[in-house]
Amino acid sequence: MGQQTFIAVDWGTTNRRAYLIKNGTVVDTERDSLGVTAVPAGGFEEEVAKLRDRHGGAPVVLAGMVGSNRGWVDAGYVSTPATLEALATAVVHPMDGVLIIPGVRHVAEGRGDVMRGEEVQLLGALAAGLAPADALLCQPGTHCKWAWMKDGTLSAFVTAMTGEMFALLKAHALIGQEMTGEVTPGAAFVQGVREGGRGDLLASLFGVRPASLLSLRDREDAAAFVSGLLIGADCASHAGKGEVHLLADPALGALYSQAITELGGTPLLIDSHTAFIAGVTRLWEYLS
Amino acid sequence: MGQQTFIAVDWGTTNRRAYLIKNGTVVDTERDSLGVTAVPAGGFEEEVAKLRDRHGGAPVVLAGMVGSNRGWVDAGYVSTPATLEALATAVVHPMDGVLIIPGVRHVAEGRGDVMRGEEVQLLGALAAGLAPADALLCQPGTHCKWAWMKDGTLSAFVTAMTGEMFALLKAHALIGQEMTGEVTPGAAFVQGVREGGRGDLLASLFGVRPASLLSLRDREDAAAFVSGLLIGADCASHAGKGEVHLLADPALGALYSQAITELGGTPLLIDSHTAFIAGVTRLWEYLS
Repeated sequence: MGQQTFIAVDWGTTNRRAYLIKNGTVVDTERDSLGVTAVPAGGFEEEVAKLRDRHGGAPVVLAGMVGSNRGWVDAGYVSTPATLEALATAVVHPMDGVLIIPGVRHVAEGRGDVMRGEEVQLLGALAAGLAPADALLCQPGTHCKWAWMKDGTLSAFVTAMTGEMFALLKAHALIGQEMTGEVTPGAAFVQGVREGGRGDLLASLFGVRPASLLSLRDREDAAAFVSGLLIGADCASHAGKGEVHLLADPALGALYSQAITELGGTPLLIDSHTAFIAGVTRLWEYLS
Repeated sequence: MGQQTFIAVDWGTTNRRAYLIKNGTVVDTERDSLGVTAVPAGGFEEEVAKLRDRHGGAPVVLAGMVGSNRGWVDAGYVSTPATLEALATAVVHPMDGVLIIPGVRHVAEGRGDVMRGEEVQLLGALAAGLAPADALLCQPGTHCKWAWMKDGTLSAFVTAMTGEMFALLKAHALIGQEMTGEVTPGAAFVQGVREGGRGDLLASLFGVRPASLLSLRDREDAAAFVSGLLIGADCASHAGKGEVHLLADPALGALYSQAITELGGTPLLIDSHTAFIAGVTRLWEYLS
């Protein structure tokens, strides 16, 4: 295509972030809550037209859930080991000047996993030199992704329902009524991380109420302890003792850093927006 | 007291089971849904009076949540190692002819756990010769209890929120919409048990949706798989390779038996009503 200016959109389930990129540099940014679920059926074409009108009609590259069966068009998946070049080759064109990046599928030993949107950040982190070609990357969140990068490719990954489980427990479990305190990476969180590392999650979670009942832990520490339990279990299963490159917001980044350190690993924080921009720009170069 | 006839009540949160016991034999039984939460504040005295009137005014021994701070009177806890004699010594008398059995508390290495009602079954199983003096007993359910009996005492125990977690996930998690099929101890359940034994529960649970999406598992098998995951994780953490004496209803007994066998242990089913009767009768003997 040869155009030097394009709009990159990270279009998730509940929000959307768009970047106007000119010669590899972000010249304008917008963010709104127009996630995929907020767009009515058949409404994507119009929303994308409005976005392009606001930015001089530049072509757009869409990543994330917009390419799922709940989004505009199902852009499918490329298989691991995945590269930005493979993603570029498999882009879907729902209309002129619009490209949707596929997701990535990983199947090994009978287990399968998928991602959609995270792959641009992960491979972008390598493209930007924010992580080496062989590295473990982690994207904490509702569904926490752990990605093993090998020779510059996205080689394997696994997703844990860490954030979703915390929200579920807080809202609906019997222990939820204990989980009213603040979550910070302090002593109760660290106690939870150690307990979570024991790998007996169902019993450790039950133990939250007896601990209050028997005055073994302050009730206001329960939420931080449960957060530590879940993040500790997640990190103990996936982080190992080496470096983990974290693509996270400051709050979750602080919790995961604390947990990884506590379990003997080395956390390194990476800026996820920089990684996304680098990934989508490199991908655009393959397409141009 | 010397009386040969008494009423034993297993009074839980949501239901109540009463046995009229004469010279160690059950001569009448009743069961209703008048759990502790269904009795209005101040209503226990009247309910117990009605129960006694129906059975010739015999004295009553109450076990279970009726002795909690949500029940009639908080009967407290005895500490591990616990015996029926220790429980008998610590009974609470809210009124003439009425005894409430305390619960049991276990604290070790900074972790605490409690039970209330299960202790009569556990120690009763030994009193009835249904399990040896040194044994691992398991009571599956919403909150699954694992109890290590030593020299005839209840030496240590741990509770896992296995059943509650299944219900939570089915009702409120994103994977809940997949969990519509029947749960039987078949192939999908066994696959879940093996996966649960890997000790990566948060990732294994997330994997349920990708498995459907990528056609790696029939969607109707998801509920059995998740049940296997949770029971497998529970058993892998607690059962070991030896004998496990199960106090369970037939459905849960079949699932736990399958999981324990799959993980290399030996399940042995015990009748929990027989165990309760034996326990409460022996306890009554200590009181008489």
